[in-house]
Amino acid sequence: MELRLAEVVALVGGNLIAGDAETTLNGIATLEEAGPGDLSFFGVAKYRPQFETTKAGAVLVSAEVDSGPEGVALIQVEDPSYALALLANKVAEMVRDFEPGIRSGAHVSEDAQVDPGAAVYPGAVIEAGAVIGAGSEICAGAVIGRGVRVGAECIVYQNATVREGCVLGDRVILQPGAVIGSDGFGYVFIGGKHQKVPQLGIVVVENDVEIGANACVDRARIGKTVIGEGSKIDNMVQIAHNVQVGKHCILVALSGVAGSSKLHDHVVLGAQVGINGHIEIASGVQLGGQSGVHKSITKPGTYIGTPPKPPKNEMRIWRGLGKLHETMQEVKALRKEIDELKKG
Amino acid sequence: MELRLAEVVALVGGNLIAGDAETTLNGIATLEEAGPGDLSFFGVAKYRPQFETTKAGAVLVSAEVDSGPEGVALIQVEDPSYALALLANKVAEMVRDFEPGIRSGAHVSEDAQVDPGAAVYPGAVIEAGAVIGAGSEICAGAVIGRGVRVGAECIVYQNATVREGCVLGDRVILQPGAVIGSDGFGYVFIGGKHQKVPQLGIVVVENDVEIGANACVDRARIGKTVIGEGSKIDNMVQIAHNVQVGKHCILVALSGVAGSSKLHDHVVLGAQVGINGHIEIASGVQLGGQSGVHKSITKPGTYIGTPPKPPKNEMRIWRGLGKLHETMQEVKALRKEIDELKKG
Amino acid sequence: MELRLAEVVALVGGNLIAGDAETTLNGIATLEEAGPGDLSFFGVAKYRPQFETTKAGAVLVSAEVDSGPEGVALIQVEDPSYALALLANKVAEMVRDFEPGIRSGAHVSEDAQVDPGAAVYPGAVIEAGAVIGAGSEICAGAVIGRGVRVGAECIVYQNATVREGCVLGDRVILQPGAVIGSDGFGYVFIGGKHQKVPQLGIVVVENDVEIGANACVDRARIGKTVIGEGSKIDNMVQIAHNVQVGKHCILVALSGVAGSSKLHDHVVLGAQVGINGHIEIASGVQLGGQSGVHKSITKPGTYIGTPPKPPKNEMRIWRGLGKLHETMQEVKALRKEIDELKKG
Repeated sequence: MELRLAEVVALVGGNLIAGDAETTLNGIATLEEAGPGDLSFFGVAKYRPQFETTKAGAVLVSAEVDSGPEGVALIQVEDPSYALALLANKVAEMVRDFEPGIRSGAHVSEDAQVDPGAAVYPGAVIEAGAVIGAGSEICAGAVIGRGVRVGAECIVYQNATVREGCVLGDRVILQPGAVIGSDGFGYVFIGGKHQKVPQLGIVVVENDVEIGANACVDRARIGKTVIGEGSKIDNMVQIAHNVQVGKHCILVALSGVAGSSKLHDHVVLGAQVGINGHIEIASGVQLGGQSGVHKSITKPGTYIGTPPKPPKNEMRIWRGLGKLHETMQEVKALRKEIDELKKG
Repeated sequence: MELRLAEVVALVGGNLIAGDAETTLNGIATLEEAGPGDLSFFGVAKYRPQFETTKAGAVLVSAEVDSGPEGVALIQVEDPSYALALLANKVAEMVRDFEPGIRSGAHVSEDAQVDPGAAVYPGAVIEAGAVIGAGSEICAGAVIGRGVRVGAECIVYQNATVREGCVLGDRVILQPGAVIGSDGFGYVFIGGKHQKVPQLGIVVVENDVEIGANACVDRARIGKTVIGEGSKIDNMVQIAHNVQVGKHCILVALSGVAGSSKLHDHVVLGAQVGINGHIEIASGVQLGGQSGVHKSITKPGTYIGTPPKPPKNEMRIWRGLGKLHETMQEVKALRKEIDELKKG
Repeated sequence: MELRLAEVVALVGGNLIAGDAETTLNGIATLEEAGPGDLSFFGVAKYRPQFETTKAGAVLVSAEVDSGPEGVALIQVEDPSYALALLANKVAEMVRDFEPGIRSGAHVSEDAQVDPGAAVYPGAVIEAGAVIGAGSEICAGAVIGRGVRVGAECIVYQNATVREGCVLGDRVILQPGAVIGSDGFGYVFIGGKHQKVPQLGIVVVENDVEIGANACVDRARIGKTVIGEGSKIDNMVQIAHNVQVGKHCILVALSGVAGSSKLHDHVVLGAQVGINGHIEIASGVQLGGQSGVHKSITKPGTYIGTPPKPPKNEMRIWRGLGKLHETMQEVKALRKEIDELKKG
């Protein structure tokens, strides 16, 4: 994708106060990460240092800002955040290669209901009773099980699976290989064997959720596993049965949340984090990569480690461990010296 | 699914000694986890405290038990465990939507042998020489490779793959996206390059095994990788080449077992556990989440951490680390004071 | 597969100086791991102890070696390493069941270009604009997206996905369920919501790379994510957007590399390792299983733990932690005794 600065200005309804309208942009990034081909935005005053040093090609700014770093184009708008959101959607639309219709080679049950505005690709399977909303794409090799409801403007990428009875809201994205509605991992141990407990519930994926490649969300034992509105789940994350993920959470790759646990809104899990079963993580908690969480966390804040601690405590432990051996040697030396002193 | 208490009583051949036969139940759970809609069972005397406080709607009890908590229906049976197993199977059967036959849109090789009592769904592929047993389901998008043998009453869920030559016993379940028989990760380093070592073996999955969504079991370099009877493997678990998993093991999500290691029977791995290659884990070992195991464990028991320790030792270390900084400060203070004392 | 020793000798152009030409071999292994059915090689003098004790059926040796352990056949060749590589390829070829052609039940776009020497299996999908090179296999259920280029002699196993625009070199292997080109995990937080940042780049997988079952490589935000020539990536490894993996790296199962990080050549990651975003790992670094790496590593060598340390330091910490409680008790005792001494 490529946009001339003039097009950006037109799209967001802004004023170009610095820079050349013919410059082309080809990406969107944060002030810190942006390069000369990127558009960024400066919406909150506390990011002024990042704004002053940004390498972005152009920045959306509010009416109060009238100058910036040299060589950076500036577009004044009413609300930079909103303008960016508008533009990101526009870009996504531009790069999306979408044409409705059921392609030859797609396997659509006669008892499924596919909106004429949806697209189904070769090798995809839509089973009986499934409903696919307008503007949704079911890509090659994806399987939509019996009675599944897929909302509007969703993308179910290649070889993803949604098992029977599950529900996807609107604008949900499943990356390739994602699995929604696999059986929860539930057994009772009877006579020396693990007897499967039927997993009779479903998964509900709310609006604007994205689920990564080969990530798994298990169906509930009874009731539903829920991924709350706007939450983003990275590749190969495991969500066990009856888990509730709140709204606008971020779960980074290879993390796992065990059965019946609840993440409140705006929780962030770094990569490879493990959350025990039957616990709660308060809204606004952020967990560093590889943390292991055995008990509920009730206070918002950033934590890291096993058990999780404020980062400065964990870093202090890391430093301490580097001197652990020397400390133990010192304790032995002290023992000797004291014994000497006591002898007199 | 829903069952009236009267139906449950009829199914298990028991006596309703408390509660209303018209109550409906819709799940099965342990005494601790059960709610008013759940059936549970009280089979072993040591669980009396859990029985006394259960919130289950109904409990299967033995002939010696003739009263229980208020409001909990009781069904006397000869063997509560066996009755529950019977019922769980019944429930699974009730909720299973199964009709034999090869659906239109399934790709079945002329040289494959599919039992007339098996079902193959659209988009599924059965390659030459494969054999599918009676009552087995090969779901949409699943692939059964050349010469694979699938026993009776298996379910291979959507987009799962069984590569050439592998063998599944009876009543095996593969959740969506599971991969059986991928190449083991074996190379020889020759002339600055990793040269692939052909992986010529297979995977044998014994009876009553369940393998989770997007979990992977690699084929052996030579010989076979084995998943023992009744073992249950959760989502995204990695089993490397030539591993032997014993009978009735439990491997929780995102764990990995490296090449040629052997888990004996009834081993339990918590989530995100790592087991080194070429080691053995004794029967009855249970490992807590995120443990890292570098050496064989020969004594049954519960372990956690890296290296693995009895839980009380690991918890003591966690507590100790919380005071590590203070302890180090104290050692420095002691040093000073002793030096003072020695000076006299 | 099975080869008579005489056939091996002919294939590598060597001299049988010990052993029976009619012996059959069925595998290739290192000197340490080989059994009587295996062929091994002795190429570098420092492996003489392993050579002296090998249980291999036959060993490729250089001209200087004219005797070996009893019962072990010896084949003199000019360059044992090269001879083995030659043979491994031969074996791979022998066990590969390949016949070119587009099978019935394959979904190949009219606008795709499939070399007549390539094979496409039932249920596989080749989208418009894709190019498949000679000798490549696209297995059942695999999806090759729009405009993807697949080189020569690749194998894309069952249900693997390569999303639009990505590029695979020659002799690339994707194990079942692998995903190439899923969207990177990129959002900007605007108005309390995570707004998706379009991921406009691609993935480039260079020659001779192998990618494991259900592993994921995300497409770049802009530009490309690169997996360097000859690198081998195990099952369920996560490679985030804009990562650069160097040449001849080894990444073991369930590891993850966060966005924009760079692994130089010949890096080895053990299982379940986590690499932070925006850092670099120097050529020749080897990281032990479950290590967590927050900062760049600039010096080659072996490291383990979080933060990563030389193995002997990490082991010393493990041992120290086992005595942490006792040490803390001792510090308390010392405190008491010193207080006594000071009083006295």
